[in-house]
Amino acid sequence: MTSTSILLVNCPDRKGLVAAIANFLVRYNANILHADQHQDAESGTFLMRVEWDSRQFDLPPDAFESAFAPLAQSFNMTWQLSHRNIKPRMAIFVSRYDHCLADLLYRYQAGELHCEIPVIISNHPDTEWLANCYKIPFLYIPVERDSKAEAEAAQLETLRNLHIDFIVLARYMQVLSPDFIRHYPNRIINIHHSFLPAFHGAKPYHRAYERGVKLIGATSHYVTEILDDGPIIEQDVVRISHRDDLDDLIRRGADLEKIVLSRAVRLHIEHRVLLYANKTVVFD
Amino acid sequence: MTSTSILLVNCPDRKGLVAAIANFLVRYNANILHADQHQDAESGTFLMRVEWDSRQFDLPPDAFESAFAPLAQSFNMTWQLSHRNIKPRMAIFVSRYDHCLADLLYRYQAGELHCEIPVIISNHPDTEWLANCYKIPFLYIPVERDSKAEAEAAQLETLRNLHIDFIVLARYMQVLSPDFIRHYPNRIINIHHSFLPAFHGAKPYHRAYERGVKLIGATSHYVTEILDDGPIIEQDVVRISHRDDLDDLIRRGADLEKIVLSRAVRLHIEHRVLLYANKTVVFD
Amino acid sequence: MTSTSILLVNCPDRKGLVAAIANFLVRYNANILHADQHQDAESGTFLMRVEWDSRQFDLPPDAFESAFAPLAQSFNMTWQLSHRNIKPRMAIFVSRYDHCLADLLYRYQAGELHCEIPVIISNHPDTEWLANCYKIPFLYIPVERDSKAEAEAAQLETLRNLHIDFIVLARYMQVLSPDFIRHYPNRIINIHHSFLPAFHGAKPYHRAYERGVKLIGATSHYVTEILDDGPIIEQDVVRISHRDDLDDLIRRGADLEKIVLSRAVRLHIEHRVLLYANKTVVFD
Amino acid sequence: MTSTSILLVNCPDRKGLVAAIANFLVRYNANILHADQHQDAESGTFLMRVEWDSRQFDLPPDAFESAFAPLAQSFNMTWQLSHRNIKPRMAIFVSRYDHCLADLLYRYQAGELHCEIPVIISNHPDTEWLANCYKIPFLYIPVERDSKAEAEAAQLETLRNLHIDFIVLARYMQVLSPDFIRHYPNRIINIHHSFLPAFHGAKPYHRAYERGVKLIGATSHYVTEILDDGPIIEQDVVRISHRDDLDDLIRRGADLEKIVLSRAVRLHIEHRVLLYANKTVVFD
Repeated sequence: MTSTSILLVNCPDRKGLVAAIANFLVRYNANILHADQHQDAESGTFLMRVEWDSRQFDLPPDAFESAFAPLAQSFNMTWQLSHRNIKPRMAIFVSRYDHCLADLLYRYQAGELHCEIPVIISNHPDTEWLANCYKIPFLYIPVERDSKAEAEAAQLETLRNLHIDFIVLARYMQVLSPDFIRHYPNRIINIHHSFLPAFHGAKPYHRAYERGVKLIGATSHYVTEILDDGPIIEQDVVRISHRDDLDDLIRRGADLEKIVLSRAVRLHIEHRVLLYANKTVVFD
Repeated sequence: MTSTSILLVNCPDRKGLVAAIANFLVRYNANILHADQHQDAESGTFLMRVEWDSRQFDLPPDAFESAFAPLAQSFNMTWQLSHRNIKPRMAIFVSRYDHCLADLLYRYQAGELHCEIPVIISNHPDTEWLANCYKIPFLYIPVERDSKAEAEAAQLETLRNLHIDFIVLARYMQVLSPDFIRHYPNRIINIHHSFLPAFHGAKPYHRAYERGVKLIGATSHYVTEILDDGPIIEQDVVRISHRDDLDDLIRRGADLEKIVLSRAVRLHIEHRVLLYANKTVVFD
Repeated sequence: MTSTSILLVNCPDRKGLVAAIANFLVRYNANILHADQHQDAESGTFLMRVEWDSRQFDLPPDAFESAFAPLAQSFNMTWQLSHRNIKPRMAIFVSRYDHCLADLLYRYQAGELHCEIPVIISNHPDTEWLANCYKIPFLYIPVERDSKAEAEAAQLETLRNLHIDFIVLARYMQVLSPDFIRHYPNRIINIHHSFLPAFHGAKPYHRAYERGVKLIGATSHYVTEILDDGPIIEQDVVRISHRDDLDDLIRRGADLEKIVLSRAVRLHIEHRVLLYANKTVVFD
Repeated sequence: MTSTSILLVNCPDRKGLVAAIANFLVRYNANILHADQHQDAESGTFLMRVEWDSRQFDLPPDAFESAFAPLAQSFNMTWQLSHRNIKPRMAIFVSRYDHCLADLLYRYQAGELHCEIPVIISNHPDTEWLANCYKIPFLYIPVERDSKAEAEAAQLETLRNLHIDFIVLARYMQVLSPDFIRHYPNRIINIHHSFLPAFHGAKPYHRAYERGVKLIGATSHYVTEILDDGPIIEQDVVRISHRDDLDDLIRRGADLEKIVLSRAVRLHIEHRVLLYANKTVVFD
């Protein structure tokens, strides 16, 4: 599993795309392990994920771009190549609720998440003990109403220094500025504690309880400048009843949040998420 | 199952309520088969459903009210008594989509719904064949933009003449007037093709598709004067993927709609739904 | 949707398979709409489903075999070509329980199942009214203990005369003989009312009730000579509680059975099910 | 929540039971918060769980038994009284797989499980670091083929010394002897990694993979002398596909195991599980 390469392709749909890409790979002796593609008929978009064994592949990683460029240009492709043995570097942002953090750390330690976690950044010191358990550096950067810009500057510097590839907001209770978001476009993953688009914004469990819904949900999405509006990666729901009071909703929702977020993170790490038209195609 | 009585009670919570009601029933030799109660701590509301074998019950139905009144008054109860051997009379409203209608009729014929269906009313003639299959009277009442008041008057007259107890909107594509709704308060059951409150109003599947959600839903609720805002009886969802286009969403959603609606209708018929604070307690 | 062709391929996994098949199709100007493949690493099996627009395909259906044969032989392929505008001919076998039959007929009439239904065969006359509603020929062939061979001979003759492609056992309560099954290998779809392999054989709901399980299930599978042991196409479960008695299990299970069976039938009709090692790959 | 009392009752069903129990509680000024009962018609069993606010209850805990005895005897009740402010003492047994342990410890620390955990006992030293993180005493008792009796004796002595109320087998890979089990009848909770009764015994994921099921499951049950046959407390399943290999099944199953086990443990701690006829009634 660790020595495979993954190519993600997004381009206008045209005849011969599958054959052209397969031929390119075969020319360099690729043993294709998985290949998924999707044609969105409405927008005329072609999306593909192909994964091959890189040990017997005759094209070295640094020669791929120039070799693939002519084909990519002729089909007007947006593309991205990744290698499973290069682990992406993930930063976790957290506030006081620690259930998502604990879940991610356990999965990381258990080998379920093929990534590095160079840092946990929090605006509260509460979760440092968990970081210590799992031996992950913990950085406490307070965020006050009038110091948000400085805090974000400090966060960004840390992320740069540690060569962070993407950020996971594990119930981080601060709204990131548009400027911050622009540094990591489609590389910040959030968990929202409702079945979006229902109950976007603040206090979704309170509003779900008040509305009397029979299921509560959680949604993991990429962060964009519009709150709770980015492309959805994963969602799920759980049934509730009148026997569940607001505290039960929060407790049962927490279970959902950690499962939905960890699934989304895993899908992102394995390069299974393609973006188009403010939504995602997930090749699981 | 056919000779039981069901008492629904809604009142301010106070000590001794369960004992008082149980003692009343025991005094008349009731054999209690099911008893469910719920205390809503926030609003201080007590809700109860109790069902007993009416064959050995020493209080005749027409004497119940005067016997129970002193107790009911002392606890300030809202209450309702029903008898399972008296089948409620249900009218079905439908337009062109016939999946919910077909499902309800099949279940009625199979004995799953303990009700009478004296009439199906439609603003289109398309589903008359289904009504004929199941031998249910079908009434075609066209609804034009400028004849809606007359149409509703004709509908109401029919409902009155047939002693209809409650109405099921089985994908009836007309918005009922507030005046019409006031004739059947909390006795009109609708199916909305989304997970409310997400995508209330028109074209929910189109909007779900556009938003890129990973689950689609259906919601059955009592109709109030505010569109898609009444107390929710039942909801459910189904997972979708990028492989599902809009037509797939509509087809898979239809399956969900009929299941959710038929569950809600069954719960209503069995007197399992209690209302308070614009939401429901469902004693299943 | 109606003018597409579908190729199913099953062969030993080898490098270059995807490219070889894609190139073959491109040579004849195929516009590939969907392509799914799966490599089973354990058994070294390659499985593929590819669907293309047949209107612009330059190879006529009757020329496909000879054109494709050299490629198929070189990779040792088992393959099957189908055309969506040729509807497969499905026979339904049913006994007294009619919920699966009613569901299939409704879906057929609504255009959800792209097949023909030339006949319903039953060992009881009970469901003839349903067949009449949907205008499908109904054939009553009684099966007595000592006339089973004659009954099966009559059934087989009917199936032959009507050019039936596959058979759906919609709660048909007779065990088919090995000889009968051999006439339709992997072309008889059954619904079993449990989550197989739990509770295979008789009276699964009774046994589930006795064991105190918290979920009940239904399984649709191809029929093989070993009872309830054939390749599973689809399964699902539903949560139950102590409030559900045996009748509730049977009623709620019936809902599951019809959904699971209709999904399996649809997958079969759309040529989405590939078989290997007594299990299925389902390209949905 | 911490100062409530809970009464569990199991007896032959008779008229007047609900009233008799409610009257007894009202006599001592109980404010009933929840009351659930279930009549099993087949076996004629009455089962009840009633929870009240103990702060205003006029009967001291040590006087309850003698006051309640006459009523209990007249109805032939088996009963059990518990107090939420007395936390039950839980021992966790674990081997090498640590996902269930990590999940239980996190929930304990987060206040989701109202219990004490005086000890974790393991036949391997691997999970000591987790115990240390959460500051729970860890006891390593190796179990060799010819030292099982001594190991169990040491375990039992520890459990006795620590006044353990119940044991959770969090993927403990040793079969307990009948003698050991007899010390904690219906007080040992196991998690089995299949949807019982399917795939009881060893290697359920391997067998599920081989059989080609479309859902995998997990089951939490009380341990009895017959392997994997005790009363089921909770079960759940998750959908899989051909894209999931055996490792995926194990990984996805692990998620299910920890959720199912933690739900069962919580239900047991909150005295929501009643036993009869080798099955459970769960009042959630």
